[in-house]
Amino acid sequence: MESPGQLLELIRATDGITRSDLVDLSGLARSTVTQRVDSLIDAGFVVEAGEARSTGGRPPTLLRFNSESGVVLAADLGATRARFAVTDLDGSVLDERAMDLLIADGPDPVLATTMKVFDELLDATGMSPNDVRGVGIGVPGPIDFAAGRPSDPPIMPGWHDYPIGDRFRDRFRVPVLVDNDVNIMALGEFWLSDPRPTSMVVVKIGTGIGGGIIIDGHVHRGAKGAAGNIGHIQTDTEAVCNCGNVGCLEGVAGGAALAEEMRAAGYDVENARGVVDLVLSGNPDAVVAVRKAGTRVGGMLAGVINLLNPEVIVINGDIARAGQPLLAGIRETIYHRSTALTTNDLQVRVSDLGDTAGVVGAAVMVIDSILDPAVVDADIESRVGAVA
Amino acid sequence: MESPGQLLELIRATDGITRSDLVDLSGLARSTVTQRVDSLIDAGFVVEAGEARSTGGRPPTLLRFNSESGVVLAADLGATRARFAVTDLDGSVLDERAMDLLIADGPDPVLATTMKVFDELLDATGMSPNDVRGVGIGVPGPIDFAAGRPSDPPIMPGWHDYPIGDRFRDRFRVPVLVDNDVNIMALGEFWLSDPRPTSMVVVKIGTGIGGGIIIDGHVHRGAKGAAGNIGHIQTDTEAVCNCGNVGCLEGVAGGAALAEEMRAAGYDVENARGVVDLVLSGNPDAVVAVRKAGTRVGGMLAGVINLLNPEVIVINGDIARAGQPLLAGIRETIYHRSTALTTNDLQVRVSDLGDTAGVVGAAVMVIDSILDPAVVDADIESRVGAVA
Repeated sequence: MESPGQLLELIRATDGITRSDLVDLSGLARSTVTQRVDSLIDAGFVVEAGEARSTGGRPPTLLRFNSESGVVLAADLGATRARFAVTDLDGSVLDERAMDLLIADGPDPVLATTMKVFDELLDATGMSPNDVRGVGIGVPGPIDFAAGRPSDPPIMPGWHDYPIGDRFRDRFRVPVLVDNDVNIMALGEFWLSDPRPTSMVVVKIGTGIGGGIIIDGHVHRGAKGAAGNIGHIQTDTEAVCNCGNVGCLEGVAGGAALAEEMRAAGYDVENARGVVDLVLSGNPDAVVAVRKAGTRVGGMLAGVINLLNPEVIVINGDIARAGQPLLAGIRETIYHRSTALTTNDLQVRVSDLGDTAGVVGAAVMVIDSILDPAVVDADIESRVGAVA
Repeated sequence: MESPGQLLELIRATDGITRSDLVDLSGLARSTVTQRVDSLIDAGFVVEAGEARSTGGRPPTLLRFNSESGVVLAADLGATRARFAVTDLDGSVLDERAMDLLIADGPDPVLATTMKVFDELLDATGMSPNDVRGVGIGVPGPIDFAAGRPSDPPIMPGWHDYPIGDRFRDRFRVPVLVDNDVNIMALGEFWLSDPRPTSMVVVKIGTGIGGGIIIDGHVHRGAKGAAGNIGHIQTDTEAVCNCGNVGCLEGVAGGAALAEEMRAAGYDVENARGVVDLVLSGNPDAVVAVRKAGTRVGGMLAGVINLLNPEVIVINGDIARAGQPLLAGIRETIYHRSTALTTNDLQVRVSDLGDTAGVVGAAVMVIDSILDPAVVDADIESRVGAVA
């Protein structure tokens, strides 16, 4: 009973599929599949690409999602750095740029730079503004997702309630989606996992600590878009956090807290990256500090695991580059504190994607939206009239 | 582009809807809606019931979900008590029974009793076994949901890997679903909420402490069906838990722990219900103990709220009957520890459903499964041939 949009979902999940396999998978009549596939081909969503191995007679044609029928522009705007990419409709990066960019400079200069880099990326890949199917943007603060506006973001002065999408929507006439940096990172980690897990928690340990939750392929944003705020879960310490509370995880295990700890021990360290450089150079004080931070993060994660029983946990962010000492501390506490049933097959790993996860996730957020079956169905209906 | 099953979902969400409103809601052509509604009426899922107010001309006919076209049998098997119900296909209880029943007696006697009570309930409501469309059962332990079998349940000797559904499936030839007691309680609380929230966490504080998570109308079970295991999240205490770990929430705030605390203070209290009786009689020691337990539960919930940002939190279970002192302790800690954005519109309440939530949830679990759009579509296709 699948609609054209739902058939497209089936096709996207494969590297190429025959009409016969679609009949089997969908339970639809062959004539119905033929008609709906034709409408998907006419609309440019699907192409015939090569032939499947024959089981006798003429080899059947393979259908593939036409991921080259447009591009998506993606930006991951961090506190001090930004990464931009142009991707195809599979979320594959065609070209990207990274640069220092201060979010605290405010919306006008930051978004003007973003538009400029988007134009460069289109030029560099031989694409025109007409090829753009959507724009996805991540920012380091809480977002009212439906409105696409930051909501009292603590480290983004001037951005509160700013309509980030407007100038891109005016320019490209396409959907523009905005989410916070950790949610898009989580979506990118999910998308590039093989196989993709049914549930996943991504922890970003940079200056602060944030979390992204993927359930059944979707970001869980919560009632106010504030889900994943794991940096302010309480630990059993007395450290005062910049949020005004005492004992927040971020106040003892975030990159800023670790840098301060190293400075107190006499090291000349500016930020999270400085801490990681010390760890990678083998400095024992830094290794101990990061491992201890790992046990704190692990204590928080033990609770998350008991609550959500995720299939995969991924650690990303600057501090994640510290690698083993961090992971060892995290695992030690998780295995001590979570139930056996939840940890037996649990994967806990440091990301091998780094910053790429963010821009890919920003693109995938847009792709999921514009290829939503209901959106595809509406598009096809508007082209060919009602498809019963 | 909605299929018949998806149209049925739209109809179920209303108290009665016209074909015109379905055309508007679905975006389908009027002729398609007419055809699909006819197939739903032919299959018995939908009935014409009354007339909408006319806006001129002949008043249009209202379509309603035919919730009386069958019944569901539901059982909530607790550690020492059980509740059974027969419901219609809206989850409305037609009749119910509660009794003492020890889960530790093992599957044979407990399930024989369950079958006997199911037969009594069918008799009492004038239904026959042929009217049964599905069976839903909750048990107080971890469940492999796909298989419908308990998985090393700590307080259910003899139940490990037992195929609970088999005898009901053999008898009634219908789907039988089994889940743990807190998940069905959460689903029942969700179903009977008005309006139904997009996300909800239900905490059951009985002898132990468990949680059920509802996201987008579905129970979140996690990778191994072990989600919601909040009783073993760590608190900052040194109490040894029966799981072998130290500092578990359940070991300081569960009903068994509270009863022990009251006994140590010289009170003759057997269990959670005894503690609540003391609270309700105004005993200050019991009030203080329950309020303190509330702050412990609130501390755990503050983390859950930061992580998931749910719309509603409901407290149920024997200890929930203590009411205000418990809720005050919970709220005090939540508002202290969670971010303002997550708590501004958060509802935290004690259930007014009590034990009914479990059996209703067990029934709704089954109803959601048998009325899943894909299942309805397959049913209709098998009756009337391929519906394009």
